[in-house]
Amino acid sequence: MSGKLYGVGVGPGAPDLITLRAWRLITGAQVIAYPAPDSGQSFARSIVAGCLRKDQIEIPIVVPMRVERFPAAQVYDEASENIVAHLDAGRDVIVLCEGDPFFYGSFMYVYERLSDKYDCEVVPGVSSIMTGAAVSGIPLAARNDVLTILPGPLPDDELTERINATDALVIMKVGRHLKRIRDLLNELNLLDKAIYLERVSLGEQRTMPLADMTDESAPYFSMITIYKGAEPWIDTAKMNVTNHD
Amino acid sequence: MSGKLYGVGVGPGAPDLITLRAWRLITGAQVIAYPAPDSGQSFARSIVAGCLRKDQIEIPIVVPMRVERFPAAQVYDEASENIVAHLDAGRDVIVLCEGDPFFYGSFMYVYERLSDKYDCEVVPGVSSIMTGAAVSGIPLAARNDVLTILPGPLPDDELTERINATDALVIMKVGRHLKRIRDLLNELNLLDKAIYLERVSLGEQRTMPLADMTDESAPYFSMITIYKGAEPWIDTAKMNVTNHD
Repeated sequence: MSGKLYGVGVGPGAPDLITLRAWRLITGAQVIAYPAPDSGQSFARSIVAGCLRKDQIEIPIVVPMRVERFPAAQVYDEASENIVAHLDAGRDVIVLCEGDPFFYGSFMYVYERLSDKYDCEVVPGVSSIMTGAAVSGIPLAARNDVLTILPGPLPDDELTERINATDALVIMKVGRHLKRIRDLLNELNLLDKAIYLERVSLGEQRTMPLADMTDESAPYFSMITIYKGAEPWIDTAKMNVTNHD
Repeated sequence: MSGKLYGVGVGPGAPDLITLRAWRLITGAQVIAYPAPDSGQSFARSIVAGCLRKDQIEIPIVVPMRVERFPAAQVYDEASENIVAHLDAGRDVIVLCEGDPFFYGSFMYVYERLSDKYDCEVVPGVSSIMTGAAVSGIPLAARNDVLTILPGPLPDDELTERINATDALVIMKVGRHLKRIRDLLNELNLLDKAIYLERVSLGEQRTMPLADMTDESAPYFSMITIYKGAEPWIDTAKMNVTNHD
């Protein structure tokens, strides 16, 4: 009998923001796969490093970190073959995913290759967007607000139209688009409502009004949030600022 | 010294989809508050019932369950006074919130009243939207998709415009708007891509193509998702259907 494939969201970064279900699956796993950069540590693995045992088989899925470029299909083809060997041998395989597996998550590239042939379960995780709201003290959305999630690489005209049309928004994958997006929000008179967030929930987290974030670019795991709502208690200027740089 | 106020997301419903942080805070708490209906059990409390002890002080925040009506400010004024008495006595107070506190969460009504005067921490939770994607096997968003979160009570013309303009969407708070929204999606030729989800992650969860959900109305904790993406592996017709009715 084949093993089962699990896509497990491990949350935004803090080890105690994984779920009890993720913890149970990871501590009990025989085989654990995770995305890893070509140099340096796997972020997903680092979140759960405290749960791992030496007798577990680890499968790093080494994804070249070229910015904004979809990683070669070959990487996921090879990783999937590796995972399949374990599934066929009757071993369950846990694939770790930063945040949530089905919210812009890398697990989808494994899922699309294997979910037709193997029993598969997705374990949702705490997303960086909810964590960003929690650490900044400013909600994502309330009551009948419309919330729009926008990838930062979208062109200016599309961003402009969608930003103007919504009550609240999160711009994901800010990265090298930081300066362009900041300039755009300034033109749209929204800079004073925009929050910059980086590596939320981690020790090196940075949160600040976007106007104060003057770098040209940002890490991949960064985002910008805007809540346009008229709630009187929401005051961007009073937000908690953390900056460990 | 005053106690600290915590807004703790307890996730979509399954007791093991709370975070380790939530578990630690709840099991260690002296005082726990939660929204409760005027008759029947508190959903938020039921999620963590297995963690509670008899010596903990519980504060039900009884919110009359009139559909779509914002509960009287008086309920939260009184609950906040009750919470303040404990904070002033130096006791921390945990306020439970279904899903995530800052994603359409009821905790905001306590937060807006007390966050200026007391030390406050928000603990993010697993959201029903990520859980809905996990249980249906269909992603929320990938790559450069735009994802729009829409409250079901919005009028038809606004829903139409926003549904047409996005790559992926979740309609929250479907409730008594079910039939209207289903008719609208049918007119927009999107019914075959729409998923209906109810009480995700719980034993009584229901997930099915919206076309198969012929009821006139739905519970408050229900949603509709549409992923328009052209990923060949996404096939609404093949989705797992659970229906415990």
